Amino acid sequence: MSVSKEETQNSGLERFPVAATELAEIGRGFYARGWVLGTSGNLSAVVSHEPLTLAITSSGVDKGGLAVEDILLIDGEGIVLEGRGRPSAETRLHLAVVKLRGAGSVLHTHSVWSNILSDEFLGEGGLKIEGHEMLKGLDGVETHEHCEWLPIIENSQDMTRLASTVEQVLTQHPKAHGFLLRRHGLYTWGRNVAEAKRHIEILEFLLEVTGRTRFTRKH
Amino acid sequence: MSVSKEETQNSGLERFPVAATELAEIGRGFYARGWVLGTSGNLSAVVSHEPLTLAITSSGVDKGGLAVEDILLIDGEGIVLEGRGRPSAETRLHLAVVKLRGAGSVLHTHSVWSNILSDEFLGEGGLKIEGHEMLKGLDGVETHEHCEWLPIIENSQDMTRLASTVEQVLTQHPKAHGFLLRRHGLYTWGRNVAEAKRHIEILEFLLEVTGRTRFTRKH
Amino acid sequence: MSVSKEETQNSGLERFPVAATELAEIGRGFYARGWVLGTSGNLSAVVSHEPLTLAITSSGVDKGGLAVEDILLIDGEGIVLEGRGRPSAETRLHLAVVKLRGAGSVLHTHSVWSNILSDEFLGEGGLKIEGHEMLKGLDGVETHEHCEWLPIIENSQDMTRLASTVEQVLTQHPKAHGFLLRRHGLYTWGRNVAEAKRHIEILEFLLEVTGRTRFTRKH
Amino acid sequence: MSVSKEETQNSGLERFPVAATELAEIGRGFYARGWVLGTSGNLSAVVSHEPLTLAITSSGVDKGGLAVEDILLIDGEGIVLEGRGRPSAETRLHLAVVKLRGAGSVLHTHSVWSNILSDEFLGEGGLKIEGHEMLKGLDGVETHEHCEWLPIIENSQDMTRLASTVEQVLTQHPKAHGFLLRRHGLYTWGRNVAEAKRHIEILEFLLEVTGRTRFTRKH
Repeated sequence: MSVSKEETQNSGLERFPVAATELAEIGRGFYARGWVLGTSGNLSAVVSHEPLTLAITSSGVDKGGLAVEDILLIDGEGIVLEGRGRPSAETRLHLAVVKLRGAGSVLHTHSVWSNILSDEFLGEGGLKIEGHEMLKGLDGVETHEHCEWLPIIENSQDMTRLASTVEQVLTQHPKAHGFLLRRHGLYTWGRNVAEAKRHIEILEFLLEVTGRTRFTRKH
Repeated sequence: MSVSKEETQNSGLERFPVAATELAEIGRGFYARGWVLGTSGNLSAVVSHEPLTLAITSSGVDKGGLAVEDILLIDGEGIVLEGRGRPSAETRLHLAVVKLRGAGSVLHTHSVWSNILSDEFLGEGGLKIEGHEMLKGLDGVETHEHCEWLPIIENSQDMTRLASTVEQVLTQHPKAHGFLLRRHGLYTWGRNVAEAKRHIEILEFLLEVTGRTRFTRKH
Repeated sequence: MSVSKEETQNSGLERFPVAATELAEIGRGFYARGWVLGTSGNLSAVVSHEPLTLAITSSGVDKGGLAVEDILLIDGEGIVLEGRGRPSAETRLHLAVVKLRGAGSVLHTHSVWSNILSDEFLGEGGLKIEGHEMLKGLDGVETHEHCEWLPIIENSQDMTRLASTVEQVLTQHPKAHGFLLRRHGLYTWGRNVAEAKRHIEILEFLLEVTGRTRFTRKH
Repeated sequence: MSVSKEETQNSGLERFPVAATELAEIGRGFYARGWVLGTSGNLSAVVSHEPLTLAITSSGVDKGGLAVEDILLIDGEGIVLEGRGRPSAETRLHLAVVKLRGAGSVLHTHSVWSNILSDEFLGEGGLKIEGHEMLKGLDGVETHEHCEWLPIIENSQDMTRLASTVEQVLTQHPKAHGFLLRRHGLYTWGRNVAEAKRHIEILEFLLEVTGRTRFTRKH
């Protein structure tokens, strides 16, 4: 039995190696910056929307040496189609973001500043970032006068409940480009891997600016 | 029709690859330091003064993998002569600096400390940096007893107006080696790419020293 | 006289090069992060449990260029079996941890934050870290609601006494994944080199989060 | 006329390439850490004590790409024997340290923390660092209970006067392993290049610990 070209394209199998290579390179870069230490963080890229297949980092992998072999291909239910290993426990969050935002890539980091600020601002439900030129790098933002609201969600090990909360929060904040999990980290996404990477860099940068300003300035 | 050697030299076409290579290497280095994250920042080098042609980074490019192909050759009006892509929206600021200062290279970074300090000192119109040995690395400065005034300009998306403000500020402060755009970043320049790079490193270093001293010291 | 395959395996000689390669790579990585500057820090991996043989960094070696040749094979008394050089003065601490915890690898770093916090919290006998997702990367921890107690031990040059104190502290805190020596650094371990490396990254990350939060937040 | 083997060895010409290679590698490493930005800092190594010849970085060189060609061979008066370029204006300080301490290498960095602390502690004449395990990496120090006094000298462009002050301070503090120039940077040395590098790493590390503790802790 032969597989038609169309079927191969639909399942995204031929685009999987490209996506895996991109994610591996991004993972090593984030590791160098200290954003995915201790095997933390997870990275995904849609390889096919219909049916949904996702390239995603295998659970518990050291991002410092992230290789193509550490990336799995899963379907829309999180079942592994290609590759060895277990997809991250947070796969449900990736799938929720892909479905709600139509994202082509979802990236999740654990940085020092996201840990500090997600705790400090939990009571306010989110973090407001405004007036920075860097905001213009977020998809659809045309001016530094933009006000970005980064929702903060209490962390949980109950992934069903957490995915449900993420869905609610994303629905409530349709313009948000990311969200923070308390004392856990940052989630953002983009139409493709390059845009999601750009969003991580921008939001992590602005978290550092916010943190250093807030915590060290005289009040 | 053949192009004479003189014409080729005038347009700077033969020097363009060298300039592009230098800018690409500097961009990757600045990215590693976190000074041009999220596709931010832009870098230029004059390849010919008469007529004016400028090598400049293409808009929206990831500086982490900045390549010669990401550098455009433009004329004094910002028209692309060579390369694919759109020059940065801030091209006008580069051209203004080149014309007013006779600079051979203009570099622009978005660092954490320039974002914080350009906001904190906006009301004073600028930031004074004095007494540091590092100042001696600025062109024409012979002693650490030098007092450098780094003007701060309110950020704007109106490039015509912003370029005009930059021209005024540079005229008012003829000895300034750079300026800050509020919550945006640092501009500096030099007679050539190496000098402009040196100026970025010196000013970013002194911004960090100023920031850490001011924001963390007891008062 | 020929050595049987079993004997070779017991002494771990054939696994020594692999362990040495792993430790050298980890050392260079920690050096890049500033965790083992100035020849500080030491790294070990069990190559055989019965009899006990340990691959361990030679004393006084620059970790920036750590090579396989800088790793020694020692026995359970600290006697050098293979390689040139002197094992670290802290070899006794490594051996104590291996024996008490059944560890397969022990790693020790000197970071800025471990120096600051081990001094600040000495009076409390340890540092409590809780509520962070990152804690889940510690062996056996299943939730961010975990509370990790990182004991702090006064530093000493008397290695017999210090090893004895370490043994007492580890016995008193059977669930601890590491400990701090005051104004000295962090010790942690794992079943293998990869796990011990993961523990270092997690604990160093959480020390930085703790330090930045505690020392810079308004109280 | 042939040069005897003894003469060649005396002038150190055959050891010059080795010293230049070591200094170039160290310079690139320090640049990566941000300790010699903007062409700042200078590095030297004695290649012959009798007569005195010194390998030293050429003035105004970007340390990020420091190459063997950027290292000069000079005599005890600072006259260039080999290589193109001008030795650093601070060559006199290097020569003073070599003569007073019998050093085999002198290294000088411009770090953020040395700039901040040399200003903050100027009135006290120096900075006291004690109780840290890292101090044991300084030549001759056997315990963390060591108290290191790092003298601070007011910066000056008058190199004759500054060299004279350095000589006085080194004579007054015979056990000092380095000194700070106010708002300028750190000088340290060692019997050889490896030891001087180790001293830089240890002192820069301890300056960061001191700075973060002093400037951010509640008082």
